[in-house]
Amino acid sequence: MPANNRTLRVAALQQAWHGSKDATLDRTEALIREAATGGAQLVCLQELHAGPYFCQHQAAELFDLAEPLDGPTARRLGQLADELKIVIVGSIFEKRGTGVYHNTALVFDRSPELAGFYRKMHIPDDPGFYEKYYFIPGDADEPGFQPIDTSVGKLGVLVCWDQWYPEAARLMALAGADILIYPTAIGWEPEEDTAENERQTDAWITVQRGHAVANNLPVVAINRVRHEADPTGVTDGILFWGNSFICGGQGEFLAQADRESETVLMAEIDMNRTEQLRRIWPYFRDRRIDAYGDITRRWRS
Amino acid sequence: MPANNRTLRVAALQQAWHGSKDATLDRTEALIREAATGGAQLVCLQELHAGPYFCQHQAAELFDLAEPLDGPTARRLGQLADELKIVIVGSIFEKRGTGVYHNTALVFDRSPELAGFYRKMHIPDDPGFYEKYYFIPGDADEPGFQPIDTSVGKLGVLVCWDQWYPEAARLMALAGADILIYPTAIGWEPEEDTAENERQTDAWITVQRGHAVANNLPVVAINRVRHEADPTGVTDGILFWGNSFICGGQGEFLAQADRESETVLMAEIDMNRTEQLRRIWPYFRDRRIDAYGDITRRWRS
Repeated sequence: MPANNRTLRVAALQQAWHGSKDATLDRTEALIREAATGGAQLVCLQELHAGPYFCQHQAAELFDLAEPLDGPTARRLGQLADELKIVIVGSIFEKRGTGVYHNTALVFDRSPELAGFYRKMHIPDDPGFYEKYYFIPGDADEPGFQPIDTSVGKLGVLVCWDQWYPEAARLMALAGADILIYPTAIGWEPEEDTAENERQTDAWITVQRGHAVANNLPVVAINRVRHEADPTGVTDGILFWGNSFICGGQGEFLAQADRESETVLMAEIDMNRTEQLRRIWPYFRDRRIDAYGDITRRWRS
Repeated sequence: MPANNRTLRVAALQQAWHGSKDATLDRTEALIREAATGGAQLVCLQELHAGPYFCQHQAAELFDLAEPLDGPTARRLGQLADELKIVIVGSIFEKRGTGVYHNTALVFDRSPELAGFYRKMHIPDDPGFYEKYYFIPGDADEPGFQPIDTSVGKLGVLVCWDQWYPEAARLMALAGADILIYPTAIGWEPEEDTAENERQTDAWITVQRGHAVANNLPVVAINRVRHEADPTGVTDGILFWGNSFICGGQGEFLAQADRESETVLMAEIDMNRTEQLRRIWPYFRDRRIDAYGDITRRWRS
């Protein structure tokens, strides 16, 4: 990261699904242009932003939604990054090969060429979120937990379910990430009670702010909004809870969106802050790497 | 843990230093009795509760403050645990051998005998907190990151600086901990500005609530209160910030103390909740133990 560029203007685009891929990407493009006009150097999109959250049910024909790393969604994002001279973090349903699919984040750095990608490493699977049916977990080393080098810094891009795993954030930090970015699609079952909904939303925010604190790194979390029906009618669908936010390396909120609006959430991040924080709170100095070996065990018994 | 004992009444004793060890332990005993009268089954004390926070400066004579695992402070806590039929988590400056000292948490389980101990694994060292001068970090395996088995569950006892390390919380959880407990002594330099003080306090709360969320475990954090002078006069001393709290496995606050009062903070924890949470948010199922090996590296480059 250039020494003279220590303030980073970041935008998180909190969006809804607009009924078709073209309509949704048109809306995304408009919001990206709005962010760039507002001075954003880094624009972050939500998980699987070009489509609906299709994992609510299992259907073989939905694999048609997948695209390769250089497919139409990637090309459109790359052209925008090139034209607007910004860094864009996008997300696609990736077809890597016949029968080999991933949930993949893409990074474009002021150019139509792919700067790097990250394949979601932790794949959830529970009623309404049947992701293990669609996505193979990312390979351990290709690229694994590796930040992506760009003109605005090393981006520690992780995806949704990864956000509950302190290991993922730590590995990105140890590999030199300057910022953690979590494209997300998370929501409530509409019939759940309000108190439980609030606990879940707050837990989601808190655990990611915790990664910021533990690693002295800023965090950007981008979530979708609005209700999407379950095409099978088995459930009441998912009400995506928004609440996208940007926080600094002490977990302090820099910007926070509401639970329902499409919005360009902007914040200015002081990129010198991590260096300062790692001096006053030198956690990395005191890690007990001699005693952490059991982290790679399933259970200690 | 007995199947019929699924609600746990916990007390966290937020205390000040009272000028002498005897006066302080007398006050601690009064608060322990108050907690027991209020129905507490588990009473948690703050870090190094029998003394001042003596690590503000380096002085060889302060090693006189240390006690063995069966010293007077331990005996007093053990007698109270036995008399009141409660579990007590205490904390001492431990003399393990000549020239071998630790910062050690002790657990007594309704008996004068030591149920288990934990030696602080991460030792801080910064102006006003010269702990590396006094404490050897705990050994990796004796006991290392191991919860302590008691009649109220497996206690994942960690100490202060450990609270910034997600690895420590995770290792306790993987070893079957039912609850995480952090005896602490943390405060502000009195001359720091208010906004920075608030960021620090909130970061301290947030990272620990993050461990609760990431591990689906309740957390008890016990901090001291009031100002303690720097005997050398080099600094303005430390204003310990209190804010002890108890939260559930979604990071939700069950009880929270203020920043200055001595108090018996009580909460009732639903100990069935972890089982429920690990079913609806099954993080442990999806951990990428094949890809976490670099957690034991100092830096990934």
